[in-house]
Amino acid sequence: MASKKKVSIAVIRRLPRYYRYLSDLLLVDITRISSKELSTRMGITASQIRQDLNCFGGFGQQGYGYNVESLYKEIGNILGVTSRFKTVIIGAGNMGQALAHYGNFERRGFEIIGVFDINPELVGKKVNKIEILHMDLIDEFIKSNKVDIAILTVPYEQTPGLAEKMAGLGIKGLWNFSPMDLKLPHKMVIENVHLSDSLMVLGYRIKERYDEKPD
Amino acid sequence: MASKKKVSIAVIRRLPRYYRYLSDLLLVDITRISSKELSTRMGITASQIRQDLNCFGGFGQQGYGYNVESLYKEIGNILGVTSRFKTVIIGAGNMGQALAHYGNFERRGFEIIGVFDINPELVGKKVNKIEILHMDLIDEFIKSNKVDIAILTVPYEQTPGLAEKMAGLGIKGLWNFSPMDLKLPHKMVIENVHLSDSLMVLGYRIKERYDEKPD
Repeated sequence: MASKKKVSIAVIRRLPRYYRYLSDLLLVDITRISSKELSTRMGITASQIRQDLNCFGGFGQQGYGYNVESLYKEIGNILGVTSRFKTVIIGAGNMGQALAHYGNFERRGFEIIGVFDINPELVGKKVNKIEILHMDLIDEFIKSNKVDIAILTVPYEQTPGLAEKMAGLGIKGLWNFSPMDLKLPHKMVIENVHLSDSLMVLGYRIKERYDEKPD
Repeated sequence: MASKKKVSIAVIRRLPRYYRYLSDLLLVDITRISSKELSTRMGITASQIRQDLNCFGGFGQQGYGYNVESLYKEIGNILGVTSRFKTVIIGAGNMGQALAHYGNFERRGFEIIGVFDINPELVGKKVNKIEILHMDLIDEFIKSNKVDIAILTVPYEQTPGLAEKMAGLGIKGLWNFSPMDLKLPHKMVIENVHLSDSLMVLGYRIKERYDEKPD
């Protein structure tokens, strides 16, 4: 794998979607699928699908299509779904607590092992069986538990400072829920979640469907 | 605008990102930018950017680049940021409450006017100044307030039934936080939020950066 060609981030961002669709196909016992059929289901062009999957050596066969199970497994391997990441949540407000309860992450290999806040009313309480600890303890916790990922669900103004602190503590990846495109001059990987992007697309699609094509 | 060519959803999904980047440029008084510079900042190829923006008639000039402010305004118009959508949240658990507090939505034209739940411990409480109402009241509320959008933050198994109900009540768009790709045979637009997709991309990037290029 050391010689693996670097795959563009745009392709990588589509892989979890392929993975979900293939998982749905397996659930209904569909064992093979053409790029054309996959295209119809996913709303991506067939040529885009072939191009995407070719980046990984291609798993399809002319005239046969894709074997759903091997493609599913292969994409899972590429995404590293069997990896295990030790994860902490920083900010135990509503969003932090919601994420702590989201069982889907654990199934994907992201194990929440700590939740932190500075609010004395939250510290000591439990969220999904994990005791909320005070932020004073985080340096020690991250070091002794070799934490990989920090999920940041803190107010906007606290985000850059905390992100810097995480980089300094050796965190490898940050999942940022503050509405800002956080960029830092560190090796640490940052994924910014922009919930309002998805809401804006919803707004656009409603206007398109209800304003221009009355039925 | 009635004759507007249908733009592919892939392009539409990139627009909120252009919109955010241009907004950042305006904040630091950058008034024009080439597709090449925009490309470097956004990590999208320059040809992709030109292609995307050409879908809307193109706003760039050879040798000059894009006027940041007009491009920002134009993309805002396309996305309909001046639209107003009456929105309710169904499910006042942690995720529902987190979204009710997320001021960014209001700025984008999504006005939260109601929050609903069936849990007697939540009904009657206030979240961001809005009283949580019992689900028994939702039919009447949606009709009399002409609600456009419902945000669903309910458990997995309740999602399909509630989505059907919303379609029946004339809701135009659904923003679904349950980890399923909800599809219904209705006109209603559905945007599914897949938080774990973004987390999987984070996992991939960490592996790529830390396993293969040790430094």
